[in-house]
Amino acid sequence: MTQDMNLWISEHHEDYLIQQYRVEKTIFSGRSDFQKVDVVETRGHGKVLFIDGLTMISERDEFVYHDMIAHVPLFVHPDPKRVLVIGGGDGGTAREVLRHTTVERAVMVEIDGVVVNACKKYIPQTSCALEDPRLDLRIDDGVRFMAETDELFDVVIVDSTDPIGPAAPLFGEEFYRNVHRVLDEDGIAVAQGESSFYMVDEQKSILKSARAVFPKLHLYNYSNLTYPGGLWSFMFASKGLCPIKDFDPARVKASGLKFRYYNPALHQASFCLAQFQLDLLQDLLTELDVFAS
Amino acid sequence: MTQDMNLWISEHHEDYLIQQYRVEKTIFSGRSDFQKVDVVETRGHGKVLFIDGLTMISERDEFVYHDMIAHVPLFVHPDPKRVLVIGGGDGGTAREVLRHTTVERAVMVEIDGVVVNACKKYIPQTSCALEDPRLDLRIDDGVRFMAETDELFDVVIVDSTDPIGPAAPLFGEEFYRNVHRVLDEDGIAVAQGESSFYMVDEQKSILKSARAVFPKLHLYNYSNLTYPGGLWSFMFASKGLCPIKDFDPARVKASGLKFRYYNPALHQASFCLAQFQLDLLQDLLTELDVFAS
Repeated sequence: MTQDMNLWISEHHEDYLIQQYRVEKTIFSGRSDFQKVDVVETRGHGKVLFIDGLTMISERDEFVYHDMIAHVPLFVHPDPKRVLVIGGGDGGTAREVLRHTTVERAVMVEIDGVVVNACKKYIPQTSCALEDPRLDLRIDDGVRFMAETDELFDVVIVDSTDPIGPAAPLFGEEFYRNVHRVLDEDGIAVAQGESSFYMVDEQKSILKSARAVFPKLHLYNYSNLTYPGGLWSFMFASKGLCPIKDFDPARVKASGLKFRYYNPALHQASFCLAQFQLDLLQDLLTELDVFAS
Repeated sequence: MTQDMNLWISEHHEDYLIQQYRVEKTIFSGRSDFQKVDVVETRGHGKVLFIDGLTMISERDEFVYHDMIAHVPLFVHPDPKRVLVIGGGDGGTAREVLRHTTVERAVMVEIDGVVVNACKKYIPQTSCALEDPRLDLRIDDGVRFMAETDELFDVVIVDSTDPIGPAAPLFGEEFYRNVHRVLDEDGIAVAQGESSFYMVDEQKSILKSARAVFPKLHLYNYSNLTYPGGLWSFMFASKGLCPIKDFDPARVKASGLKFRYYNPALHQASFCLAQFQLDLLQDLLTELDVFAS
């Protein structure tokens, strides 16, 4: 990440793509034990959180990511009471999880207190629910927490960066064995699932890790404004529940919740993958016949 | 569009976003009567066609755009024999249209011969079907052609740039009156429909123009790698056919055609809009109850 004289901030993807945002001012810039953390006020996207030079969230489009990572599993599970979030230091995932009144207890394990504190101070839009009394926020290593806890959860959400630095083990099979272990019988795990365009190896890696452990595995898409390539995905792994057959659209309406990206038709549509995604991933995914016409 | 010493080519969106591609070499650079035309060999996206500094197509992802602009209307119309393409100088839309063996005659009206010749010479991936004997390729003003022709068509496809320069009238009501006039009774018109993130005014403008004329109006999404913001849309206007209720997935399989982006489930899913799109556009669109759950 570089910031030049004309006040642009640049995100590099491989050696062939750069995305630049116009900077109004740098609000916070720090280096934690794990990574570089920057919060920048931009002209077009509000405040943007960068970790190691990669865009994590922008105020303009974070609703897309957080709607889709939280509401898809929480509306498939019949009665989500106990939710575990690994990562998600900006607070946006916890914010959306806690809008569900069924949720009695949410545990959020974020390795980097610098991210949490920067977002608490400078990005209230995402961090606004971190003081909710139902939330048990721990600054701790999610991999270790997952290996050691004996709590059971209905939904586990892995809200991680790409598999570099402290997030790398979150893409491994050992981690997913523990995700499976801490999930109760109707359990669902959802994870940031990378991009079928630019991040194919990373996407296959996480799907293989989960497929080694979970009997049901799906991928669903969302269109993010600030991640390279636009088409990004979440992984949906479960002990048995199907995100289409076990989804009751009436529950969304009955919840009374309003969303900016999510709705029941989009829930179902997001699991319909492009043909090149199917060609690439069909051996790793299950129940693709749900969509066969 | 600028090209600096480090061989990057930059596309600017408003005054707050820049996307840069790593350049291997510039293959063609010219100025026609209408616009600046560049073909660049990039490191990550193959050959990229720029018009007035905006990315039109890249070899890496053009299949997304061309699959969705062509196959959605051609698989909804029960027997598409006569197809009119306005614009589409790179040839990719004509290429996909002509894969349908039902099509007996396709007319393509592109205003800029420089674009067509550059693509014929340097981008055979998209221009490879421009010599098909069923194709009547005319270098002419699409607005004038539409006003003057007395031919009838089953499907009209408006494959245009953003509403600047020669493409501006393609977003107006007068143009859509003529699109309606040249369509036979089951007629469908599809058009490049801009982005609900970054191009809201342009998207509303084209929808309003079509809505003034057509009784049925839908929007469907696709995820493009190289257009700013990823989530882009096509407009679907018809004299009566519904892209969901009148779509028979079995016809896709029966066609024997293979696709990299399009498939029957995705056809249906692409019409399921995000909630912020519905909130923004619902007064302009029709039959949204098709997706109500």
